[in-house]
Amino acid sequence: MARNTAVSADADAPPITRALARFVATHPSRGWSEAVEREAHRTLLNWLGCAVGAARHEATEAALAAVQMLQPAPQATVLGRRERVDMASAALVNGIASHTFDFDDTHLKTIIHPAGPVASALLALAEVQGASGRALIDALVLGIDVSCRMGNLMYPAHYDRGWHITGSTGMLGAAAGCARLLGLDEPQTTMALGIAASQPVGLREQFGTMTKPLHPGAAARAGLMSALLARHGYTASPRALEAARGYAQVVSTECAWHEATDELGARFEISFNSYKPYACGIVIHPSIEACARLREQGVSPAQIERIELKVHPLVLELTGKKEPADGLAAKFSVYHGCAAGLVFGCAGEAEFSDAVVNRADVVALRRKVVASVDARIAEDAVEATAWLTDGRRVQVVVEHALGSTERPMSDAALDAKFHGLADPVLGAPRCNELIEACRGAASAPDLRRLAALAQP
Amino acid sequence: MARNTAVSADADAPPITRALARFVATHPSRGWSEAVEREAHRTLLNWLGCAVGAARHEATEAALAAVQMLQPAPQATVLGRRERVDMASAALVNGIASHTFDFDDTHLKTIIHPAGPVASALLALAEVQGASGRALIDALVLGIDVSCRMGNLMYPAHYDRGWHITGSTGMLGAAAGCARLLGLDEPQTTMALGIAASQPVGLREQFGTMTKPLHPGAAARAGLMSALLARHGYTASPRALEAARGYAQVVSTECAWHEATDELGARFEISFNSYKPYACGIVIHPSIEACARLREQGVSPAQIERIELKVHPLVLELTGKKEPADGLAAKFSVYHGCAAGLVFGCAGEAEFSDAVVNRADVVALRRKVVASVDARIAEDAVEATAWLTDGRRVQVVVEHALGSTERPMSDAALDAKFHGLADPVLGAPRCNELIEACRGAASAPDLRRLAALAQP
Repeated sequence: MARNTAVSADADAPPITRALARFVATHPSRGWSEAVEREAHRTLLNWLGCAVGAARHEATEAALAAVQMLQPAPQATVLGRRERVDMASAALVNGIASHTFDFDDTHLKTIIHPAGPVASALLALAEVQGASGRALIDALVLGIDVSCRMGNLMYPAHYDRGWHITGSTGMLGAAAGCARLLGLDEPQTTMALGIAASQPVGLREQFGTMTKPLHPGAAARAGLMSALLARHGYTASPRALEAARGYAQVVSTECAWHEATDELGARFEISFNSYKPYACGIVIHPSIEACARLREQGVSPAQIERIELKVHPLVLELTGKKEPADGLAAKFSVYHGCAAGLVFGCAGEAEFSDAVVNRADVVALRRKVVASVDARIAEDAVEATAWLTDGRRVQVVVEHALGSTERPMSDAALDAKFHGLADPVLGAPRCNELIEACRGAASAPDLRRLAALAQP
Repeated sequence: MARNTAVSADADAPPITRALARFVATHPSRGWSEAVEREAHRTLLNWLGCAVGAARHEATEAALAAVQMLQPAPQATVLGRRERVDMASAALVNGIASHTFDFDDTHLKTIIHPAGPVASALLALAEVQGASGRALIDALVLGIDVSCRMGNLMYPAHYDRGWHITGSTGMLGAAAGCARLLGLDEPQTTMALGIAASQPVGLREQFGTMTKPLHPGAAARAGLMSALLARHGYTASPRALEAARGYAQVVSTECAWHEATDELGARFEISFNSYKPYACGIVIHPSIEACARLREQGVSPAQIERIELKVHPLVLELTGKKEPADGLAAKFSVYHGCAAGLVFGCAGEAEFSDAVVNRADVVALRRKVVASVDARIAEDAVEATAWLTDGRRVQVVVEHALGSTERPMSDAALDAKFHGLADPVLGAPRCNELIEACRGAASAPDLRRLAALAQP
């Protein structure tokens, strides 16, 4: 089933992004009439008068008080780095970094990656506020609940329309979590959610570029700022999420309202969170695992004539890139994923490096992979058949990939994944300390030690 | 004609904003199972590993370099105030302030208020960069061209869907203008537009709250940050605006692609910019002017039995609030606008103060206003009929309101408006200097003097 229900989807639209960029970059200075020049000055004057005139308005006061909470600048940690920046920037950068390898967590019902927007905003704020570990964990559970519930309410229509649901619900989770961490009351929290509702982030067209990880980062920053604004009395519609011209109805064609509140406080969406064993889009995971199993069964790349995959429809829609040019693009290539599984038996960040993606043997192998859609195959399953040069055929069926609800990663596997990611930056002994600090986060008096351990 | 074409518009959706806010604000700490608590810690650990692992990735490097351009913090002016903040925060706060009184400029074809997002980002960046006045004016013309052309491309479908088009196109104009000011080349400018495309801001549901002016402010900040990111090598889709799951097709149900490039560089959208004589939504202006003319003709509030208005359909859709509780809400009340016109002969910020809105004579008068939609009435026109207590009837027809394309405000009227807004903050002599500085902006070596003049 094709999932593109965008009302006017048109793959052949003219290249206006480049056309406007060329115009902006190259049009000559003052390349217009006297009348245009005059209107530019009138526009400037009128804008300036309006801004000066409202300089003491309560909206300006509240906004200024909120941005002044970002002072002094070096107040929050950039994870894995020595630099410190203001907390809104820390939320942005940590949100970007945590999603850059496409290796973060996944709420399987909605394909939301919930921690990026929520945890990035919370850790930055918690550092500045000196919040307790208990408060951070509470805010994390509640914030993730809000963004994933809104995802449940709109999925799949919202995603089908073209929104990258991680960023386009994430600012609500970040706002909710930060509101909780700030101790906002119900009316203020309503305002925080309302302010955040106006700032959804993320287009699926950006997949394969750095703007994909920008989505959780910008959502983290927007959510944090929304909570800071609400704390200082900034107002929004108390029906911003549900109104006819509010968030859900503007960004989705379908809204299952009951999902927002069914079993609220009894069922927690973080329970359905999962973690990826492979550093790429989750829909490729069954295929990678199948090829890694072929390798375990003694099949080597040299023996391969071709590999046939029967996959869920989303696999080719999301990850159908046949000839990825670099590591980032390879994360959207089921063909590269299979090659990595068969050559290396794994697919961590190293197997998605530019060098590996362009290695001759890897390129040759991925060209031997043929994938076809089979509507009977579940999203976490695959049927892989290797046709060998000696005429033999080896088949592997993955019914539930590792990292699925049915086969979650163990704590030990999660620790090993952490070491694989963070050892090159912090070293193994420091990573052991950091793993301990995370496991004991709820009882920490504040998050400053945890944040300090994450700096090299 | 009703303009709400949102696919699933549902005015009776349950109050989930408040329900989720109550949950977030009041759910007890650790009010969940051991399994949920464990998943929270696993989520934290996995997120942290991903962020630390990507700490040296080029996306993280670019994002960090961009936010470090915000240092040191007090680098840019908050208009009309003594405080100075980082330039992204200045773009946000000045964008909010300039739209707070709903008194800024209007691109009449699309109802975009173009200066708020674009000028707010540009002045902050120009101060920091030491850019020339010429460069600022060039960037203003080009930035406004980009946001208004994207508006032309999507209006009215995009607006009908529920987007506040000022913020949801403004980040593109701000990104374009800032890219120009930074001297980005065509490929970098393409990336700046692409990064901005993922960050539309603004829901019409927020009208009447402080989040309406947040929209241009947040768009200014998003556009500025997009240009800074692009300058440091951050990437986006080069088809972010036009792709099937790109910006225009995700946020609009109709896209007239040719509007992006027709007469590009020959026709400039800033030519169609207009300025408001009244401090409220532009669709009320003909009605206010009609009532001010009734007053000029000797009609006094005491004589009024009722006032009948025949108005364009948008008037009641956008400004149909019968009993506005405060000044902000009164900006969306054609009834209050008429009362102000008849009582005061004008409708500046003072006539939208909370005190005036709740004055007994003003309240009594606005209750005597009856408005009905007439599809033959243009957006800048009105037919007003006053029925007097002595049985007489006085009719006023406004064919083109002051501030419309056909009847633009003169420079002298614009100066008077500026004084009305800014004199209470800066005093008249300083305002005269500031008006001169704006008029001569194109020949200023830099914008620092202009910015300094705007501080009390």
